[in-house]
Amino acid sequence: MILETIERENDIKKVAPEDWNLLAQEIREFLIRKISVTGGHLGSNLGSVELTMALHLSLTFPKDKIVWDVGHQSYTHKILTGRKAGFENLRKYGGMSGFPKRKESDCDCFDTGHSSTSISAGLGLVKARDLRGEDSTIVSVIGDGSLTGGMAYEALNNAAQMKGNFIIVLNDNNMSISENVGGVSKYLNNIRTADKYLDIKEGIYNSLMDTRIGVPIVKSIQRAKSSVKQLVIPGMFFEDMGITYLGPVDGHNINAMLKVFKEAKRCKTAVIVHVITQKGKGFAPAEKHPARFHGAEPFDVNTGLPLKQKTKSNYTDVFSTVMCKLGERYDNVVAITAAMPDGTGLKRFRNMYPERFFDVGIAEEHAVTFAAGLAAGGMKPVVAVYSSFLQRAYDQILHDVCIQNLPVVFAIDRAGLVGSDGETHQGIFDLSYLSSIPNMHIMAPKNKWELSDMLKFAVAFNGPIALRYPRGEAYDGLREYRDIIHLGKAEWIYREKDIALVAVGSMVKTALTVRESLLKKGHSCSIINARFVKPIDTEILDDAVRTHRYIVTLEENVASGGFGEKVRDYLDGIQANVRLLNINIPDEYVEHGNVDILRREVGIDAETIERRISELLG
Amino acid sequence: MILETIERENDIKKVAPEDWNLLAQEIREFLIRKISVTGGHLGSNLGSVELTMALHLSLTFPKDKIVWDVGHQSYTHKILTGRKAGFENLRKYGGMSGFPKRKESDCDCFDTGHSSTSISAGLGLVKARDLRGEDSTIVSVIGDGSLTGGMAYEALNNAAQMKGNFIIVLNDNNMSISENVGGVSKYLNNIRTADKYLDIKEGIYNSLMDTRIGVPIVKSIQRAKSSVKQLVIPGMFFEDMGITYLGPVDGHNINAMLKVFKEAKRCKTAVIVHVITQKGKGFAPAEKHPARFHGAEPFDVNTGLPLKQKTKSNYTDVFSTVMCKLGERYDNVVAITAAMPDGTGLKRFRNMYPERFFDVGIAEEHAVTFAAGLAAGGMKPVVAVYSSFLQRAYDQILHDVCIQNLPVVFAIDRAGLVGSDGETHQGIFDLSYLSSIPNMHIMAPKNKWELSDMLKFAVAFNGPIALRYPRGEAYDGLREYRDIIHLGKAEWIYREKDIALVAVGSMVKTALTVRESLLKKGHSCSIINARFVKPIDTEILDDAVRTHRYIVTLEENVASGGFGEKVRDYLDGIQANVRLLNINIPDEYVEHGNVDILRREVGIDAETIERRISELLG
Repeated sequence: MILETIERENDIKKVAPEDWNLLAQEIREFLIRKISVTGGHLGSNLGSVELTMALHLSLTFPKDKIVWDVGHQSYTHKILTGRKAGFENLRKYGGMSGFPKRKESDCDCFDTGHSSTSISAGLGLVKARDLRGEDSTIVSVIGDGSLTGGMAYEALNNAAQMKGNFIIVLNDNNMSISENVGGVSKYLNNIRTADKYLDIKEGIYNSLMDTRIGVPIVKSIQRAKSSVKQLVIPGMFFEDMGITYLGPVDGHNINAMLKVFKEAKRCKTAVIVHVITQKGKGFAPAEKHPARFHGAEPFDVNTGLPLKQKTKSNYTDVFSTVMCKLGERYDNVVAITAAMPDGTGLKRFRNMYPERFFDVGIAEEHAVTFAAGLAAGGMKPVVAVYSSFLQRAYDQILHDVCIQNLPVVFAIDRAGLVGSDGETHQGIFDLSYLSSIPNMHIMAPKNKWELSDMLKFAVAFNGPIALRYPRGEAYDGLREYRDIIHLGKAEWIYREKDIALVAVGSMVKTALTVRESLLKKGHSCSIINARFVKPIDTEILDDAVRTHRYIVTLEENVASGGFGEKVRDYLDGIQANVRLLNINIPDEYVEHGNVDILRREVGIDAETIERRISELLG
Repeated sequence: MILETIERENDIKKVAPEDWNLLAQEIREFLIRKISVTGGHLGSNLGSVELTMALHLSLTFPKDKIVWDVGHQSYTHKILTGRKAGFENLRKYGGMSGFPKRKESDCDCFDTGHSSTSISAGLGLVKARDLRGEDSTIVSVIGDGSLTGGMAYEALNNAAQMKGNFIIVLNDNNMSISENVGGVSKYLNNIRTADKYLDIKEGIYNSLMDTRIGVPIVKSIQRAKSSVKQLVIPGMFFEDMGITYLGPVDGHNINAMLKVFKEAKRCKTAVIVHVITQKGKGFAPAEKHPARFHGAEPFDVNTGLPLKQKTKSNYTDVFSTVMCKLGERYDNVVAITAAMPDGTGLKRFRNMYPERFFDVGIAEEHAVTFAAGLAAGGMKPVVAVYSSFLQRAYDQILHDVCIQNLPVVFAIDRAGLVGSDGETHQGIFDLSYLSSIPNMHIMAPKNKWELSDMLKFAVAFNGPIALRYPRGEAYDGLREYRDIIHLGKAEWIYREKDIALVAVGSMVKTALTVRESLLKKGHSCSIINARFVKPIDTEILDDAVRTHRYIVTLEENVASGGFGEKVRDYLDGIQANVRLLNINIPDEYVEHGNVDILRREVGIDAETIERRISELLG
């Protein structure tokens, strides 16, 4: 096993060139074996094995630095920098992260998680290096999917005018999580298939050199700094911006990449190395079903099938089904995703109503303002998006949707703790950032039926409205509680006295457990399902304070700007004679791990809540 | 006067072609005369007179629609759609907005204010039109400055793959507010100066046609759908993405534009019309000083000089001065702006330390993550930005700066009510969106000396930290209160009993007036300058509740997630025996107008506060 000889960074340089392909194979086998047990990002890592090896052969760590865009493709980098053992507990609580982490290794220079940040961060490291007079190579590795994010383009635009070597590896597999979309993808595809016209170019050159008038023209072309170079060089747009373009090069051919990286290191400016790779390379099921193996649950290595069969539907499934029904009922319902037709559950809507479905690429900002435009034009757009990614579009919600009070529906999936993806992906801020925006309305369903009812309500509502629901299995209890949704109205689940738990969305289920414990201890306990986080139901609070001495709010969100603070403001305003306890997530980032463990860690599990209520009761 | 015949939309079509230039001149004179009195955006409007006329001659309102990017260049559009009279009260409270407003006219189809949104919104209107089977022309007008914003590129990427006519007018004046920057600007410049190499292209073509081997090659080129077309067409990058490119065309030649718009309307897909204009056209001072006449205060029509001489320095000046000192003291201090070296006051820093100054274009997202990269590389970046524009970078602050706890300083100008720019520009959300982010620290200075002290503190601080200060004249009272800044520590200004006003930043000055009134009525009143909004000073609150019965928080920010809620949470937690009143901005957008009027309207003026405190006292 050559892999056994790789114990720390730079060890790969001791491997003989003739063993490189064998090592690549061993790394692939290692990745498949480990991820089949723990789950994790498979396709992107299988696709970038040789690319990562070539980078490690070309660079010296930790002096040189790689910024991994998104970061889910950094597994081989972790293997090559002494973290093989970490794969035992990959993405587990207390175990190794599935993303680059500065606190995990000094070979990780910048934390990532969301898309399209790597060129900005890399450019910052480049300027810092040059201002400090240091000598190191900075590389940002960005996928063609991430290149659909506007920030990447802002960074390219800026990098183009900067001095100093900066290598941007464009890892082009023609995929986001699903198929890549848009004009840039088309542009890259033109380059990828450039062989077809290279002959034409040579033909022009040769025929020109054959003529008397041709010779000075060719000289002019060679002198020309601009678009005429298109004759000779693909990737002309980058060149025209001022960025050197090298490629395309086969991303599974280490020797070819080494040559190009050597050339790239000689540039005095930003240089794009265009590397063509195949997602899922070397594992047939992942090559065939790239979206399924993007982020994989534990699977059978032989068949590629998941080890656990899903028994219950999750919230995404419910959303998916109801969207299809709404598409049938209303001609003007349209659906928008930022590169996640699978993850958000919109694939079925796309198949049924392709002309009313829009995958805009990894472009949350555009997605939201595009939705605003659709709404201004009389449509009823539903933007389906993960909570942590919608953070990208805070200004677009505030500035393009809500100032004009446009009827855009935000279907916010993965709201609350998401688990193994960790800090960058926890959806624990949406109640705060959405609450600060005038004209916004916010709902959270207690169970799968309420998600359905709320989505229907939202589509019929004439203004900006969001519903947020968590990752994973949809709660199917409390089926009998299905009163019609009214704007800003909460719902009594249990109406008793003394202690009232006012729970938001996923926390209603938790509240039931808390109540059971309290009842066993002889307390009386009511439960209110808040339904609306904005506006809050002041009537039900008026009612509650008449018959309860303790009000406890429960939400899966940070405190600042959340539901609890709104309730506190209101109760203080009416000088209610009650004690209020707000249960929420503390003002800290929450790392990766099993969601049940995380809930305990942050103190929103039933046991902790029950203990805190007992303390309150004295 | 031809302008007198223009009373409503489409009236321009009755003007004889030979009078078009005269009308353009009259519009320019009207704009200069009106804006010299009210103030407003001059340069961009003078530059787009003929462009707007050509669009109005080509379109029919309100059936056809124009989305104006940023919207500050929509004055001629307002003139041509029956709103000449509105210029009397342009940007005044209750008067006409300086931006497009749907509620102002049905010829305004989409509200704008921030940059780079128009292609997204226009594309939404296009898809809505096509799904509804309507027949209208949708035009987005975007400047080359706005094209440096990533969202515009996300939208282009998406538009490239959509069917249906969509006209994108690229209004290219080679400027943002200041000089335009970056690779795309360079790319457009190549097109603008394309004449120089058109000859070369023709030379190639002709010489090829002269040779036997050349003829089939030229045929191949004509057949080739891709990059080889660069030989014939400028703007190839757009073409390669799948967007038709027409131009460049002289944006002050109405007939030339009419021809191109006619052609553009025939396209079945997105089409870019590249129009070259001159900012400030027709008014010598504005042609000469485009940045100064971007947003102008009232000025003398003959000299172009401002009518009012500035007597006191504003917060931006103070920031500007201190940044230069810090640049001298610390080698690792670097400054970043998103296309506003003038507005943020960084111009002097740029002149003194050009290698440590970065204008990244209208690209707030990149600006913040670029700063994170600089900080990870050992530098001390100061991002100078307006409050409402920083909304764009919420995710980058949360995801790229604060997770890694990187020492980035955010110098947030125009925080609080900004006045005549209105809803889109009010900086009344930053305390909320920043407070929700773990690891973030937030300060606000009471006066000019404290801004200086806080900036120095921030640069020495080892973590993410923001300071927010308002637009306009810097408060120069309370000079003697200049205790050293300590993390999370507030400051007593007056220490009495009964009522304690706890004021954030600009509200300290207001608190002084409120206190005077209360004293006159025989009350005792303390003032605490909060200094820190996050973390709050719990010690001073502990102290205050011992000797006061009433605590009143004052902040120029919305309630949700603001300072007042934090204080309320804390006081409730310690079961303080006080009544708390939070003064803040209600959950509504605040329109344009004089800041003093707006403060009264939203209830954060001294008189309203004093009245509310009196009510509280009973």
